[in-house]
Amino acid sequence: MPRQVDSDQRRHEIAIATWRAIDELGVDGTTMRAIADRAGCTIGRLNHYFERREDIMVSALRHAHAQAAARMAISVTGRSGRDALHAVLLEALPLDDVRRTEWKVWLTFWAQAIATESLRHEHEQRYREWRQLVATLVADAVPAMRKAQVGRIADSLVATVDGIGIHTLMSRDAGAARRARRTIESALDAHLPRSTDR
Amino acid sequence: MPRQVDSDQRRHEIAIATWRAIDELGVDGTTMRAIADRAGCTIGRLNHYFERREDIMVSALRHAHAQAAARMAISVTGRSGRDALHAVLLEALPLDDVRRTEWKVWLTFWAQAIATESLRHEHEQRYREWRQLVATLVADAVPAMRKAQVGRIADSLVATVDGIGIHTLMSRDAGAARRARRTIESALDAHLPRSTDR
Repeated sequence: MPRQVDSDQRRHEIAIATWRAIDELGVDGTTMRAIADRAGCTIGRLNHYFERREDIMVSALRHAHAQAAARMAISVTGRSGRDALHAVLLEALPLDDVRRTEWKVWLTFWAQAIATESLRHEHEQRYREWRQLVATLVADAVPAMRKAQVGRIADSLVATVDGIGIHTLMSRDAGAARRARRTIESALDAHLPRSTDR
Repeated sequence: MPRQVDSDQRRHEIAIATWRAIDELGVDGTTMRAIADRAGCTIGRLNHYFERREDIMVSALRHAHAQAAARMAISVTGRSGRDALHAVLLEALPLDDVRRTEWKVWLTFWAQAIATESLRHEHEQRYREWRQLVATLVADAVPAMRKAQVGRIADSLVATVDGIGIHTLMSRDAGAARRARRTIESALDAHLPRSTDR
């Protein structure tokens, strides 16, 4: 295997191992030791690929982001306007095991980003991309809408998804997924009424 | 000092020390050692008042919750209807240093709650109280509204606050506070249009 491909593959395996550690052990349990165990390597080997623990977290987060983006691209296939927006917002929520794990990665990342500048900066970049996607879909759904209004609605929908995501992840209530879907529909109805172009 | 008062006072001091540790060091740095240092006591002393680290986190969170509730009670004084709702939602956001620290406590708590059942359970209780407050204020603002609709709007507003809170906490952008206020106004306008009773 060429050296670069091999290196990329190892980094990918370490990102997956980090996901598994977060999923199984939470933020306090996700030590370098726990990640190395799950990647089947030594801590020294981790340090070979990632200089600092925070770099591993960035890699795990980018993997979550890329995976979600790929699913979203599939979810909009054959859809347009408000339906495409709706599909993408639902795709962002923790409504199955894979997405629950993604949300655990996000939440762990956010908590660590409070005190770690490189993680905070990474959050801002990912947030900007995600907000831009939502704004583009809002503008597609209501072509006549002013840009400032599109931005306000995108801010509100992105915030709604983050809030619902946290609560759904935390909830053991059997109705949580249904309520999450309903809240997204309610936010869409409020911001983009079906009958109006504004 | 009576024994119980003394004990409550010590627990309160430890909760404050935990806040300071989270504020200064983030989730990874908030060890029993860091908390004990800030409380001016030994780890053994911490264990005397709190059996497990998670019990300290619950105490720190309840302190955040009580402090926010007290501010909210003040913020609604002389207000009613939509204005009272608006004031309470703004009060929940990280728009000054005290509230930024509160938000750090929340985010740290959520990340730890992923893997710790007692924290997750505590989150659900606090969330229920907060949602109930918002639902009561929505019902006050639009007395004619059906109960199911009040619930949907409360879910959506609570989610919006959580999402904006995270992003505002993470942002170094000077305009973040202004955008947070604007997003709350935009969500209120969407869900509770001024001109309609629904």
